[in-house]
Amino acid sequence: MPVFLNSADPEFEASFATLLAAKREDSADVDDIVAGIIARVRAEGDAALVALTEKFDRLTLTPDTLAFTAQEVDAQIEKVGAEDRAALDQAAARIRAYHDRQMPEDASWTDPAGATLGWRWSPVSAAGLYVPGGLASYPSSVLMNAIPAKVAGVERLAITVPTPGGEVNPLVLLAARLAGVDEIYRIGGAQAIAALAYGTETIPPVDKITGPGNAFVAAAKRRVFGKVGIDMIAGPSEILVIADGDNDPDWIALDLLSQAEHDESAQSLLITTDAAFGQAVAAAVDKRLETLERRTIAGISWRDFGAVITVPDLATAAKLSNRIAPEHLELCVADPEALAPHCIHAGAIFLGQWTPEAIGDYVGGPNHVLPTARSARFSSGLSVMDFLKRTTLARMTPEALRAIGPSAERLAQSESLEAHGLSVRARLDMLNR
Amino acid sequence: MPVFLNSADPEFEASFATLLAAKREDSADVDDIVAGIIARVRAEGDAALVALTEKFDRLTLTPDTLAFTAQEVDAQIEKVGAEDRAALDQAAARIRAYHDRQMPEDASWTDPAGATLGWRWSPVSAAGLYVPGGLASYPSSVLMNAIPAKVAGVERLAITVPTPGGEVNPLVLLAARLAGVDEIYRIGGAQAIAALAYGTETIPPVDKITGPGNAFVAAAKRRVFGKVGIDMIAGPSEILVIADGDNDPDWIALDLLSQAEHDESAQSLLITTDAAFGQAVAAAVDKRLETLERRTIAGISWRDFGAVITVPDLATAAKLSNRIAPEHLELCVADPEALAPHCIHAGAIFLGQWTPEAIGDYVGGPNHVLPTARSARFSSGLSVMDFLKRTTLARMTPEALRAIGPSAERLAQSESLEAHGLSVRARLDMLNR
Repeated sequence: MPVFLNSADPEFEASFATLLAAKREDSADVDDIVAGIIARVRAEGDAALVALTEKFDRLTLTPDTLAFTAQEVDAQIEKVGAEDRAALDQAAARIRAYHDRQMPEDASWTDPAGATLGWRWSPVSAAGLYVPGGLASYPSSVLMNAIPAKVAGVERLAITVPTPGGEVNPLVLLAARLAGVDEIYRIGGAQAIAALAYGTETIPPVDKITGPGNAFVAAAKRRVFGKVGIDMIAGPSEILVIADGDNDPDWIALDLLSQAEHDESAQSLLITTDAAFGQAVAAAVDKRLETLERRTIAGISWRDFGAVITVPDLATAAKLSNRIAPEHLELCVADPEALAPHCIHAGAIFLGQWTPEAIGDYVGGPNHVLPTARSARFSSGLSVMDFLKRTTLARMTPEALRAIGPSAERLAQSESLEAHGLSVRARLDMLNR
Repeated sequence: MPVFLNSADPEFEASFATLLAAKREDSADVDDIVAGIIARVRAEGDAALVALTEKFDRLTLTPDTLAFTAQEVDAQIEKVGAEDRAALDQAAARIRAYHDRQMPEDASWTDPAGATLGWRWSPVSAAGLYVPGGLASYPSSVLMNAIPAKVAGVERLAITVPTPGGEVNPLVLLAARLAGVDEIYRIGGAQAIAALAYGTETIPPVDKITGPGNAFVAAAKRRVFGKVGIDMIAGPSEILVIADGDNDPDWIALDLLSQAEHDESAQSLLITTDAAFGQAVAAAVDKRLETLERRTIAGISWRDFGAVITVPDLATAAKLSNRIAPEHLELCVADPEALAPHCIHAGAIFLGQWTPEAIGDYVGGPNHVLPTARSARFSSGLSVMDFLKRTTLARMTPEALRAIGPSAERLAQSESLEAHGLSVRARLDMLNR
C-alpha cells in the first residue's frame, strides 16, 4: 500500500517531510573496484578492454573487433521490422525537430564605450554515449542522447554498448544509425567510461560523456569528471500527477505505473483535490498490478515509495509540487496552462489528460533525460547545450581602454594584483604620450 | 627560466605533451576532514558554525551575529573611498549590461501533428556565493558571481565570507550591496558550504552554490553536489598569448605576469611567430620580476610552468591553442578577428593588443569565472544560465495523440515497458470508441 496523506491533517507536514527525505538510491559502494578498472584501462589500453570484456561480458574480442563494422550494423538493422522502424523514424524526426530549436545564437555588439563584446557557441569536438546492455538497452535513450549531440554539431560521436555473450539489440544499432553516431564499441561498464575518457590504442578519447548506466558506470563517470565533461548522474525515475476528480482513474493509474515499472526505487505520486478520486486511482493501480508484466517491480515501487495526497485546492498542489521538484509532472486538470506557471521546479511538464508521460519518453520531442531526486530545483534535462560551450569575446579600442581602463587599474590595485594594473597602465601611458 | 620550444624541432611534440600534462593542482587530501565538518554542521547547526568559526577564524560569534546587519554593512561601506567606489560602480554596471543579454527566451509552438511543445526558463530560488577571506577576498569575484544570479532572477542570494579576527574587506561588502546580495554571513571554509547546502537554524539552505575557495571549500562543494548545484571547481589560472612580432614586449610580459602573480601554480604561455620577439618578452618578464610586488609568486609560476613557443605561422598557433584549451586567450596579432574562429576551445578571447586580459577580470563585462585545466573543451564560463533551469512543456490534443501515440506504444513494447504502452493505448481506445 502506498501512503495516503491529506494536507489538512495536523501531522501532514511531518509525513510529507518523511516522503521527501525517503532514500531511494541504491548506493552500492563500488568506488574502489571502479578506480582499479580505470587505472587498468589507462595502463593497458585495448588489452584491458579485451580482458575485462571477456570477464564481465563473456565475449572474446580483439582490438580489431572492439568496434562494430558498418556491415555488422547493416546486418543487425535488417532484422528490425517495418513497424518498429517506422516508430523509431517518427521518434527521431520529432526529437530532432524539437532540439533544432534549442540552438543558441552567437552575439556581438559594440557598447557606448566603444568596446566590442559578445560570445560564441561551439560544439565539443568529440562525445561518447554510454548505452547499457541487456534489459535496460533502450533505443529511445540512444536517440535522446545522440540527437542533441549531432544537432549541436559534435563531429565525432561514439557509443559504447556491452553485448553480453555477443547479444545486441538491433533497435539500438538502428537508433544509432538514425541519430548519426560515428563509432559503436562492444564494451560496457567502468572500462567503457575509462576508454572514452582516456582513450586506448583503438579508441580516441572524447571530451564529454553522457548516458545512463549502473552503479559502476555512475561511479566511473564521477571519477573521470574534470578530465572530461559528464551529464548528470541520474537517480531512479519519478512522476508526480496532479489531477482533479474529472479524470479516468485507470488512465492516471497507468501513468503512475509507467514510472513504477522502471525500477523498485522509482517513485509515483498523486496529488488530487478529490479524496474519493485518489482512492479510485489506488484501486485502479491494484487492479492493473494483477496482470502487469512488470508487476513485481512496479508493485514494490508503489508500495514502498508511492503516495496519494489529498489537497483542498490546486494552489496547495502547486506548492507541494515545488517542494517535490519532480522529474516528470503531469497536470491532469481542467486548465493545465493556468496551473503550470505555479509549478516552478520540474524537469518536464505534461499538460492535460491527453498527454501521458510515456509520450515524452518516446515521441513527444523534448528530451527524456531529466533531473531526478529534487535536482530540478537547480538543473535541467539534457539538451543541445550539454554539447556546446560558450567562449566570451572582448575587443577594446584605444578609446574604450581610455574609458574603462582606469577602473580596472584601480580595482587591481585594491586587490593587490599589481601586474594586472600595470598591464592596463602601460597601454594607457602610451595613449597619453 | 620558462621552457622555450619551437614547433619545428623534432622533439617538439614530446615537450609540448609534457607541458600539457604538467600537474599544477595542489591536491591536498582534505576529504576526511571536510566530511567531518559537514557532518557536524548537519548535526549541530548554528552551534557548529559558532564553534568552528571560533577555532578557524579566531572570532566569537553567536547565532544572532552570524549575519551582518544592514547597519554593519553601511558602516563598512562608508570606509570606501570615492575612487574605489566609482570603479566598482562602473564594473558592476558593465557586468550587468553584458549578462542582461544572456537571458534566454522561453519558447512555445504547435507542430504539424497538433502537439504544443516548448520550454520555460526559471531561476533557482536561492543561491549561495562563497567569498574567500584574507588576501584572496576579491570584490571583483563578488560582482562576477552575484550579478549573473540577480540578472537570472534569483530571489534569495546569500554570501558567506570568513572574517578572520573580525577583519572584513569593505570593498567586498560594497560589491555585495551593488550586486543586490540579500544576506551576508561571517563564516567560511567547509562549514560555510555545509551551512548553505543543508541549512541551520539561522541560515536557510540554498539550491545552488558558486564561488572560488581553497582546497577545503572545493572538497566541500564536491561533497554537497547533488544535494545542491555547484559551479565548476576552478583550478589555477592560465593565460595563452598568441602574438606576432609587432607588439611591445613589455605589454605582453605584463599580460603574462598578470596570471603568474595569482598563484605559484598559474600558467602563462606565449606562442609567437617571431622567435626574437619571444626572447624579448622573456627578457621583459625578467626585468619586471625585479620589482613586481608579487615577484616571488609570479617568478615561481613563470619558472615552473611558463613557456615561450615559436611557430612558423598563425595556423599552427591556433592548432596548439586548441590543444591547450586555455582559460584566457589573447590574440595580439594584426587581424585577431580572422584568427579567433580558428581558436575553437577557449574560455575567453581577448582581441588585439589594446585588450589586456586584466580588462576582463574587472570591467570588460564578460564573466571572469572561466574553465581551467583544459576544460574549455567541454565547459563554459559562469553566466546567467548557471542560475536558471529549463522545464520542458508538452501538450497533446486527441488528434496529436492519434498521430504519434501508436509509435510511442510500439517503442514501449519493444522496450518491454508495458505500462508505458498501456497508458497511451487506454487513451487511444477512448478515441476509437
